[in-house]
Formats: sequence, C-alpha cells, structure tokens
Amino acid sequence: KMLNTVLCMVLFLGALPSLAEASQGHVSVILLGATGDLAKKYLWQGLFQLYLDHVSSGHSFTFHGAALTALEPGQQLMFDVLKKLSCPQDESPDRCAVLKDQFLKLSQYHQLKTAENYTALNRDIEMLLRQEGLKEAGRIFYFSVPPFAYTDIARHINSSCRPPPGAWLRVALEKPFGHDLESARQLAAELTGFFREEEMYRVDHYLGKQAVAHILPFRDQNRQFLDPIWNRHHVERVEIVLKETVDAKGRTSFYEQYGVIRDVLQNHLTEALMFLTMELPGNLSSAGEVLQRKLQAFQSLRGLEKSSAVVGQYEAYGSHVREELQRDQHYVSTTPTFAGVLVHSDSLRWEGVPFLLTAGKALDERVGYVRVLFKNRAYCPQSGTLRDAGSSQCKAKQIIFYIGHGTLNTPAVLVSRNLFKPIMPESSWKEAAVQPELHIFGQPLSDYYVYNPMKERDAYSVLISSIYHGRKDFFITTENLLASWEFWTPLLDSISDQPPRLYPGGVENQHLLDFEIVGGDLAFALAEPLELLHPEGPTPSDYKAIQAKYRQSPLVSAWPEELVSQLASDMERAASSAVARAGCFHLALSGGSSPVVLFQRLARHHYAFPWRYTHVWLVDERCVPLTDPESNFFNLHNHLLQSVRVPYFNVHPMPVHLNQRLCVEEDRGAELYAKEITALVANASFDLVLLGMGSDGHTASLFPHSENGLEGAQSVVLTESPVKPHQRMSLSLPLINRARKVFVLVLGKGKHNITSLMSRVGHEPRKWPISGVSPSSGRLVWYVDYEALLG
Amino acid sequence: KMLNTVLCMVLFLGALPSLAEASQGHVSVILLGATGDLAKKYLWQGLFQLYLDHVSSGHSFTFHGAALTALEPGQQLMFDVLKKLSCPQDESPDRCAVLKDQFLKLSQYHQLKTAENYTALNRDIEMLLRQEGLKEAGRIFYFSVPPFAYTDIARHINSSCRPPPGAWLRVALEKPFGHDLESARQLAAELTGFFREEEMYRVDHYLGKQAVAHILPFRDQNRQFLDPIWNRHHVERVEIVLKETVDAKGRTSFYEQYGVIRDVLQNHLTEALMFLTMELPGNLSSAGEVLQRKLQAFQSLRGLEKSSAVVGQYEAYGSHVREELQRDQHYVSTTPTFAGVLVHSDSLRWEGVPFLLTAGKALDERVGYVRVLFKNRAYCPQSGTLRDAGSSQCKAKQIIFYIGHGTLNTPAVLVSRNLFKPIMPESSWKEAAVQPELHIFGQPLSDYYVYNPMKERDAYSVLISSIYHGRKDFFITTENLLASWEFWTPLLDSISDQPPRLYPGGVENQHLLDFEIVGGDLAFALAEPLELLHPEGPTPSDYKAIQAKYRQSPLVSAWPEELVSQLASDMERAASSAVARAGCFHLALSGGSSPVVLFQRLARHHYAFPWRYTHVWLVDERCVPLTDPESNFFNLHNHLLQSVRVPYFNVHPMPVHLNQRLCVEEDRGAELYAKEITALVANASFDLVLLGMGSDGHTASLFPHSENGLEGAQSVVLTESPVKPHQRMSLSLPLINRARKVFVLVLGKGKHNITSLMSRVGHEPRKWPISGVSPSSGRLVWYVDYEALLG
Repeated sequence: KMLNTVLCMVLFLGALPSLAEASQGHVSVILLGATGDLAKKYLWQGLFQLYLDHVSSGHSFTFHGAALTALEPGQQLMFDVLKKLSCPQDESPDRCAVLKDQFLKLSQYHQLKTAENYTALNRDIEMLLRQEGLKEAGRIFYFSVPPFAYTDIARHINSSCRPPPGAWLRVALEKPFGHDLESARQLAAELTGFFREEEMYRVDHYLGKQAVAHILPFRDQNRQFLDPIWNRHHVERVEIVLKETVDAKGRTSFYEQYGVIRDVLQNHLTEALMFLTMELPGNLSSAGEVLQRKLQAFQSLRGLEKSSAVVGQYEAYGSHVREELQRDQHYVSTTPTFAGVLVHSDSLRWEGVPFLLTAGKALDERVGYVRVLFKNRAYCPQSGTLRDAGSSQCKAKQIIFYIGHGTLNTPAVLVSRNLFKPIMPESSWKEAAVQPELHIFGQPLSDYYVYNPMKERDAYSVLISSIYHGRKDFFITTENLLASWEFWTPLLDSISDQPPRLYPGGVENQHLLDFEIVGGDLAFALAEPLELLHPEGPTPSDYKAIQAKYRQSPLVSAWPEELVSQLASDMERAASSAVARAGCFHLALSGGSSPVVLFQRLARHHYAFPWRYTHVWLVDERCVPLTDPESNFFNLHNHLLQSVRVPYFNVHPMPVHLNQRLCVEEDRGAELYAKEITALVANASFDLVLLGMGSDGHTASLFPHSENGLEGAQSVVLTESPVKPHQRMSLSLPLINRARKVFVLVLGKGKHNITSLMSRVGHEPRKWPISGVSPSSGRLVWYVDYEALLG
Repeated sequence: KMLNTVLCMVLFLGALPSLAEASQGHVSVILLGATGDLAKKYLWQGLFQLYLDHVSSGHSFTFHGAALTALEPGQQLMFDVLKKLSCPQDESPDRCAVLKDQFLKLSQYHQLKTAENYTALNRDIEMLLRQEGLKEAGRIFYFSVPPFAYTDIARHINSSCRPPPGAWLRVALEKPFGHDLESARQLAAELTGFFREEEMYRVDHYLGKQAVAHILPFRDQNRQFLDPIWNRHHVERVEIVLKETVDAKGRTSFYEQYGVIRDVLQNHLTEALMFLTMELPGNLSSAGEVLQRKLQAFQSLRGLEKSSAVVGQYEAYGSHVREELQRDQHYVSTTPTFAGVLVHSDSLRWEGVPFLLTAGKALDERVGYVRVLFKNRAYCPQSGTLRDAGSSQCKAKQIIFYIGHGTLNTPAVLVSRNLFKPIMPESSWKEAAVQPELHIFGQPLSDYYVYNPMKERDAYSVLISSIYHGRKDFFITTENLLASWEFWTPLLDSISDQPPRLYPGGVENQHLLDFEIVGGDLAFALAEPLELLHPEGPTPSDYKAIQAKYRQSPLVSAWPEELVSQLASDMERAASSAVARAGCFHLALSGGSSPVVLFQRLARHHYAFPWRYTHVWLVDERCVPLTDPESNFFNLHNHLLQSVRVPYFNVHPMPVHLNQRLCVEEDRGAELYAKEITALVANASFDLVLLGMGSDGHTASLFPHSENGLEGAQSVVLTESPVKPHQRMSLSLPLINRARKVFVLVLGKGKHNITSLMSRVGHEPRKWPISGVSPSSGRLVWYVDYEALLG
C-alpha cells in the first residue's frame, strides 16, 4: 500500500530511488566539509556503508554534502569523490552497483557559507519531505571542518536547520576539541549554547576501532576469568601504543600547534586507558553508567608531572616547519612528534601499576595496540619443556587488543593460552587461523588464543552507524572531554619549553627512544647523544655549583622542581643517618602550601625513606578539627602520610581539638604536646625541623610581635595569626633552635621581597620571627628557589 | 740450621718427610670417620689439597684417620682410600707424586672407641712433638660421623685430647645439626659443654661452593652498581634452586627422618638466602660483623605457614623406604623429596619480593643456582632490534650465581650486559670464553658477562683450607644455626602430616611440579591428577556443607586455618557492601589472641579490602598505654594496621590514656569514646562487630557479674577483669546489639567446655555476658573451629 505510493513519488522525483520502505521516517545526513581530506578518505565511504546496511531498515535517507565552494565546482568535486566509492568485499557486486547508483542519486551538494545558505538547505529538506509525504525521523550534521568554524556553523544550524519537534538532531564533531583545558572549556561552552548534550556526538575515531571498541565488552563477557586478575596484584604493566611511520610533512600548520600528545594521547590513547582502568558498570549498554565509571576513573589518575614524560622530535621536523610555515632559519620548534608518558591510577585496583602510553611519528613501524602484561608468579622446576607446552604457567601472560597494522595487519584480540580461553561474541569475532611462523610480543602466535573480527570494519563506518543508532557510548561527552584535558593540561604546560630529543626517523632510531621508569619518573634509557638544543644562558646547575651563603648559613638554590627534589634527598639522608645512629628520626613539619610539593615528592620518589622509624611532628597547626581541609595535619596526611607507612604511634598531630572545642587555654593542649615531645624526643631536640618563611617574616605560627613563643621556657604555644583562622598552635623559637637540623624552604616570586630584606637584617625575632631561627648547636640550611631569590 | 736438625729427625723417624719448615709449629689433623663415604669422596682429597697448598707455609703436619674399626683392618681400609688420591690438574705430576708419598707417610690410622683410645691418641701426638722438638700450633678434629656419636666424641676430645695452652683446637662438625629447633638446641647445648664457640666449625659445604662463597664479596665489590637496585623497587624475584637427578635409594634410613627441607633448604639454600638478603657489613672480613648482619636478616624473615610451601615425593620413594627400612606394604611416608617454599623478608629493602627456594630429588636435571631477576622498567618503541643489542634495556636483567652442573657445568657468575660490567677479583675469577650457542635462563650466553673461577676448587678443599686459616665466616655459628631452625621448624611441624604430591621422577615430571604464588600462598599450578593419599574419615569440607546453627544463629565450623580464611572473606564482603551502600565501613575489633591470625590473614590475603573507607574501632581495651605490648590496639596495629592503609582519622583507639594516667573515671575516656561513636557512626550502629568468647563466658571486656555494660544507656564503660591488667574499657552489650552484623570467633580446645555450655543455656548475660549478644535487628554468626566445637 504505502510502498506503491512511495515508489510513485520516487519515479515522479526521478532521483530518489529508495525511499521505498520509509515507513519509519526520513533521515537527512549533512556532511560539512564534504570535499575535504577526511570526507574523501573515510566519511563518504562510511555514509555509503550506512546506506548499504540500512537501506531496508524502514528509514529513508538523503545525503547532503556541503562546503564553502560555490555550487557547480563543489558539485563536481563531490561527485568525483562519490564515483570512487568502493563496494565492500562481502557485498554482491550486482546489488552494490545498484545501490551505489541509488546512493549517488540520493546525494546532493550545497554551498553553505551564509545564513541564507542554511535557511535554503532547511527549506530544501522540508520541501522534499513534504513532496514525498514523509515523516522526518532526524538529521545528522557531520562537522568535518576546522574547529575555528565550529561556532558559526553551530549557530546557523541551531537557528535555521533544526528539525521539527519529534525528530532528532545529531551533530557529529571532529577533533581537535580545544588545545588545552581552558580552550576546550570555552569551545564546549559555546557549543552548549547551540546544542543539547545529547545532540552532540564528539568523534574519537579510536572508539570505532574494533579492537578498542571491544575492550569493555571483553571485560564484561570474561568477568569470571578477569575478576581475580584484573588488578595491581596480577598486572605487571600496561602498554598503550600508537606508532606511525609517516611524519608530519604537509600537516605542520596543524601539527606545530598540537604535537603528538594533543594529537593522539589526550584522546585516542586516553580513551583506551579509560576502558582498561574504569570499573565495569552494571549495565554496559547504558551510556550514562559507562560515563559515570569513566569519570570516576579519570578522578583516580595521579597528576602528571614534567618528569612523567619523555618527548622526542624527528630531525627533519624543524625544516618541515620552517618551509611550510615560512619561519626563518633560527626558528626552533619544541613540538613533540614522539612521547612516552607514565600514567598511574591510584584506585585500589590499579595503584602502583605503570601504564605506559607511547605514540610517535617517523617510527620504524605502523602499529597500534593495547597490551596488558601479567606478572609471572610461577616457578617451573622443569624448564626444558617450556617451549612445548602452551599452557605452562612460566610463560609470559598477556592480553592484547591489537588495533591494527603491524605484524598481524588486522584487528585482533589475543589472550595467552596459560591465562584462559576467552568468551567472544560468535557473531562478530572468530578464532583466527593458525600462523605458526608468526611471533608477537616475544612469543609464537600459537601461544595465544587469537580472534579476528568476522568482518573488518572501518572505524568511521562503525561510528557513523552508531550515530545513526543514537549510541552515545561510542562518543566523547563534554564531561569526558574536559576530564581528559584536565588530566593532560598540566603536563602540556610543564613541557611546553622542553627541548625534545631529536631522532633520525624510521629504523635509524634504534634504541634512541627507549625509555625506562626510574624512581617513579620516565627517562630515556640512553644518554642524550648531543645537546643540540641547549638553552641560552646559565642553567640551574651552573648556579648550584656556587657554594652560596644566606644569613651566614648554607644556601641551596635552583628552580622549584629541582630544589624540592634536592631538599627531599637531603631529608632522606638526614633520616637514614638518624635511624642508623639512634634507631629513630624525629621530624617536625610545617603546614602551608610550599611543603605540599615536597610531601608529594617524598611520597612518590623516596621509597627507601625509613618511615617505619620516623616520628612525624607538626611545627604548627591551625585551630580547626584535624579533618578540616584547613588543617595542616589534614594536608600532611593527604599528601604524605596516607602514602607511606609511619606507625600510628609515631604520628603526632597537635592536640588543637580537645573536649570538643578548639585551642581553649584551659584544655592545656600546648602543654600536652610539650609533654609528649619531652617524653619521646631526646633532649627535646628534633632531628629535623622544616620551616617556611611568610612574606611578613613569620615562621611556624610565630608572627611578628607575637606575645608567645619567641623566647622563654615554653616549648609549645598558642598564638594569634593576622589571617584566618586566627588561632594557632606552634612550636616556640627556643624549641626550634634546639634541633639538630633546621631546613627553611622558600618558594616563589611572592617571597622575593622578604627574601631580600632578610638577607640584610640581623637577629630581630620580634620584628621578623624567621630572623630568630638560629640553631644553638644544629645546622641551618636555606632552600630558596630562583624566583624567591632573584625576583 | 734448624732445617738440618729437623731433616735428621725425619730421617730418624723414617716416616715424616716434610716437617722441614715447621718453624711456626705443628698442626695435627684428626679425621673421625676416616673410612666413611664422605671421607672417601671428599675429605681425604681435601686434606691432601691442604697439604699440597701449605707444605711450605711454615707449619708442619700430621694426619690421623680414626674410626671404630680395629687397627689393622682400619689401616687397610684407610690406605686403600689414600692410595687413590688424585693430583690436581694444575699441579706438576712430579711434585705431586713426591708430595703424595710424603702425605701417606704423614698419615696414620687410629682406632678411637674407648676413652683409653683417645688418651692414647693424645699421647702419640705429644710424643711425636716432643721427639721432633716441635712447638704445637693446633689440632683439627673433623667429625665425619653420625650425629648421635657427637656428644661422646666431644666429651673424649675435651677431656683427653685438648692441645696444651697456646695451641688452638678446631672442631669441624658435619650436618645434620639437629632435626628441629628443640633437638638443635639440645645438641648445641651439649657441644657447648665441651667446646667454646670459637672452637667449633659447623660445616655447610655450600659455603665452600665458589659461586655461593662469592655472593657477599660480589655485593661488596659492586656496591656502586648494586646500591640503587639491590632492593624491592628493582628486584622482581629471587630463585634459589638445587635440583638433583639422583633419588634417595640407599639413603632412606637417613632421608626418611629428614626429607628435603631439612636436608638442603634449612641449611644450604638458607645460607645463600642470607648472603643475598643481609645488609652488607662495613668490614666483610670480620666474621663477627657478618654474623650480626646475618642474624638481623633472619629476624626480618616473615614466618612460614603451611601454605608457604608445596611438597612432592617421587613415586618410587615409598617402595625404597619399605624395602630398606623393612616397613610393611601399608606403610605410607609423607617425607618430601621435593619442596618449593616462598620466603619473604619484611626488611625495608626486601618487603614484597618473593624468594623462591626449590630443591628436589629425582628431577630432570642436576643443577644449582641463585638467580636474581630484576624488574623490566623499560619500554622500547623499536622492538625489532631487540635481538641485536646486548645492552637493550628491554631485555631481561638478571644476576646469577651458578653453583654448578647443569648447562654450564662449572661455577659461574653471570650479569646481564644491560645491567653493568661487574668488578671481579682478577686473581680468582676470569671472564669466560664465548659460547654463542648456549642459552641460559631464556637468553643467549652472549647477553651476559660471564665469569668462571680461575681454578675450580672442590667445596671441601675450600672449607678445610678455611678451617686451617681459622676463617670462621665460612661456617655456621650456633646462633646462626638456631636462627635457621627457628625459621624452619614451624613449617616443618605444620606440613609433617601433609601428603606430598607424587611425581614420577626425571623428565616425566613435566609440569607436575610447577608451582605459583596465589594470593601470598604457594600452590601447584596443575590440579592434583589423582588423590592418591586421601586421608581417612570426613574432611573439613564435608562438615562445612552442613547448614549448622548454634544458639539459634548460623554457625560456620572448620579447621582453624580454613575457618579464619572464611571469616576474613566474609568480613571483606561485608566491608565492600557497606562501602558500596554508605561510602564507609565501621568495624569494631576485639583484642586477645584468637583475632591475631585473622588480622594476619586480612593483612596478607585481602588486598582488595576497602581499607581506605574503613573506620577501625576497638571493642575493648586494657588500661595500659597504647604502645604497651599488652595493649589490644598495639597488637591490632602490629598485626594489621601497619600493613594496610587505613587513614589516620579513621583509626579510633580507645582513650584509656588521658592526662598521663590510665582509665581514671574523671578523665571521662569512656564518655569521650561514646561521643566519638555517636558523632561518626550512623545510629551508633556498627557495620560489623567482631567478638570472642572467654572460657568464663565473657565477651568484649564484659565479665560475668560486671556492674557495667550489660544493660542501660551507657555505650562505653570501664570494667574490671578478674585477670591482669584488671582495668578495662569496653563497648557495652546494648551498643554491640545495635550492630548490623556481629561475628563471634571461637578457636581451640580450651574453649570446648564453654562452647558446649553455651549451646544449652538461654539469655543470661549476668552469668555469661556472651549469652547477651543478640543483635536487635542485625545478624549474628558464630565461627567456631572443630576443636572448640567437638573437643
């Protein structure tokens, strides 16, 4: 009945062959940037595949290519592309030829430049639907345009091209989605002004790669095997790798702004990382649940530091940039074309497991994979038979999601035979034919269960099909995007000036890009062959060599990161020697913001610190409960104590909270703390006191003109701060000056004035309490960064 | 001058050729058991080597073989052995022939059976010395006799054969040195009655193996390379292995009493373990310093449990025992001939690193080695070139002390080329010739720096030479011996009844003996092929299947180890579900001895326990300082808290110690604790309360007829215990009964009476406080072991 009517219409229109079964409504697909590279290479083919797959689904389709080019040349360009569309191998050539012909007839070019163009497009669609008597199901706008054009196009679509109520709008967006957290936020905010979150489909084409898309389903379907081993007790390390042989030639105008981390790590590799580390949602097909788990996984990632990454640049990159961007011969680019990044998740499941993300251009091989390597927990007394038995527990155990290219040259999932035989969906994955001669990751292919897709599908086909089906779990939501930029931006900022290691490219690279984990940091395994990019002027190590004094005491000065690392090492040395001498180490720590980086450094880099024999005391405390985020102890706990093993008895928070009230004189908290010190610390002489210096010259919680603590017999005092919270508890100057070692840490430009001032004045503790720090028989060392010292 | 005189004497005696240069005095060596197996095989050869090496050292020598056999047949037996002594390869045949002749003339047989025999021996030595006009330097008595004979011989030597003042006595003792800690102590005490510690040289011939003996010097000489990596951050695991192809046939009368752990693990492999794990002394040549460090290393070893080992027995062993020991056909031996043991050191250096000790008879290969495998911390983007570069950081990194036999068939020290080029003493070790075809531990030999001894020396030669030089660091002191037995005895006791896995022997074993680390325990990798040694009667799992009740509540019963493991799992489940529900888990724990095994289980096997979200409360506390070993909290800390990561704020010790005094009413500690509970625990309803049951029916610190805590509004109370320390603080019954879950753990025969009694009485908390435990809306579960339940 309906069928006939529609067929008539089609014949009448003379160009719409297959609106035949459109009982469920019509779908218009508008491809913006229809003549661009991505469209040529993948998108039109993906749309053709969509048509092939869904021509009989009950929907009817039209396809609209759009670009800035005027109508006639645009039409020509677009149809040149469409004519070259290829038929998939599994399609009968006859049917494909017919459908291709139909597809061409259903496709139309539009110039979209002005507001009027958009109105016209909308009018065309509406007219067609009216003419055909079709209900509108929805519209897909695919943005294959540079990001600077996004906002304008989005505004036009929103104001002129929204489908009528009852039909959906889906907008597919191609990366880059910003350049850092700030720009991503801005772009997201702009788009949010035009589209609702559920209308936006941010494409990360890696999510359309079959092996990547199968990570979560694999984890879900193999829960019984993975539950006991998918954690830090069994996983040795994880490698997420995308190696390319091509370089950036011809694309430097893009690449020079972005670099490898923004180009592939922030998006592709991070998404794979999330699929591995996130907790499984109860319902995998709920995009909302998946997103929640993913965001939690982002929250668990440990912040990246400069030392979390190694970066490289292929040698010819500089000249590519100079030629293509017309820079002069002195122009030096620090854009990385290679990066290795060490990521840690601090979730209970993954704490301590290294996730190594690696990507680069101009490497020896094109390949992408995610490799989960399990710990070898077995010993095999009879080693000679190892090679024979695929199931030996002494062989390496791995699970590999092989994304493509490389040795296998096809997507695959590999599971070591000594792990388990995985459950794979029979409709989409098949066990691979045996290729006994192939070796992969150090083992013959026969050591693995190997699965390939039943039908290899291009990522864009998968994604376009997902947009059509409204499956948002294959796309990047705004929250997801911002979480990722939040994670990556600090690293990008910290390495923006760092000269990358130069590498020749291709197999010539040899071991030049090998890197290793050293004390929680990443470093290239081979020493730099030549300092080709030596920064101008004196370097920090030149400064450090000067044996400096400040206020008659030794001064260590460097850039902040290096300074803190030096201080942490000196503290470890002091701790070890105290423990060797006395069996324990009494350490008094200050609050404030400067020590936070120090605490983190100690927690993450000083595994040999003798925490078990260390007593931790507070130099000062704010009169707030210990679990208050304002509490010095709370911060000390968060940044240091929770990561190390100090015995409970050796932790000595200041008793500012007694009898449910804060720092009340008659509760005698200060006295209590003084007694505790006397009872435990020999001669009340701390092994090490760490102090800061306030811009008003205060130290500990001893403020200028304080009534307490600058002199006299009291060793712990209640004081008043000029800033909130006013009430404080503090060690007194006389007690501090009994210490064996006092280290003062001063960081940042904000401290430059007081640092200069203090270099000139003498002993005036009433004016500047810091000037009263002068250990009677101990050693005082100043750790002052260049900014505080030199302004 | 002197020379001539001595020569005359020699000629006069007609049989003492080489007292020639004896200006430094005479050494008498007495070999007890001169015609036994060890003497035949190694000891005479070692003595001959001693003579070869030191004939020109300034000492003169005589050698006395002794045994129970009468003089003439004994002489005959002994000289049959001596005639077969071989000349070392590096000795010129002429010199050797002359010296062998001399050695024979200097050697003499004695029957040593009665007290008179010993007196006669002493007289002979004295007479010889007098006749020769020689000063006595010292006497070496080498015990190559069964241990039951030790005491008698020692008594005789002490009473009749001591050299005169000024000359030394050295007594070399051969293992076994006891059968367990108790017998070793007894034997040591007996020997100490006759010899001073410095006179005793307990032989562990492994210490004479060149590769083992070089472990400490290697660590010392390569400090600069090893310092950063010889620790848990870099070492992945350590394997200490002694595989034999021979079986125990012909030796079962010894073997059946000892088994593989006593035979080689307790001594040989443990000594190698100590050389690896001990901290380096400042002075390596000080035997005293080495001993101190070794004893410290013993102290750091984590106690072994039944589950720390896997044991096997080659199939023919049973029949060998039945034949040789004339046992009937039903006799079943549980003596292990194979063992794999997982050892952990809890030192700061080694915490978490698995040390796998493995030894066995009837295996596929004869080989001994110590293998230190380092973690791979590197990623190599260009994997294809791996095979070429010996120095790639991505190859395995190992240091191997190859004791002998096996592929290399010579002692060796191997260091992976990507680690460092070791410093080796040029006088005793040489770099090995390249053997490119050989593979060892998965890598071609060319991947290693390989060193062999300049001169391969038999262990006994080394040891005899060390005795002669008085180098005690090559021997086992009494303290060392007892420390080792203290370590091994609990394991030996716990597995004494355990049926070992049967294995066919030789290459047939295949993967049958492969084992792996599973959750901190060792287990065979393959399931038991056949339960050949099934114990009689019902097994624990038969019991457990019964859905039992006790006092109207669910009852879980099993053998203690299994019961505790079940309880720990149930606790983890409760914790996870509370955290999922409420974000936190409030857990109240009891003191006492029963929970200690539970705490250890939780600490070592439940890595997924959500400690970060758990609040730990005390059910009761003794009124002692928290750091007092009597304190419940102290024990909780030692056995659990120090091994897991509970945030400081979530740990809630009872405030028994306020204002420097203990549980004084007016300090209102109980009230304080009650307020803390009210503030943090919703409805004051703990998620889980763990209780015990005293043999008087007490629970928590609520004792029969207590005035406090059995009813009423108070939730925390001070109570009096009938046993010291009398003063206690305790949660009250009403508070306990508000809990969501209450688990009661009852272990041991000592609880059988009260367990029976409580099964019959009703709710009588004044008589038996435990009978008042009855959660108002929560769930009560009893965990009672078989001994408490069944008596």
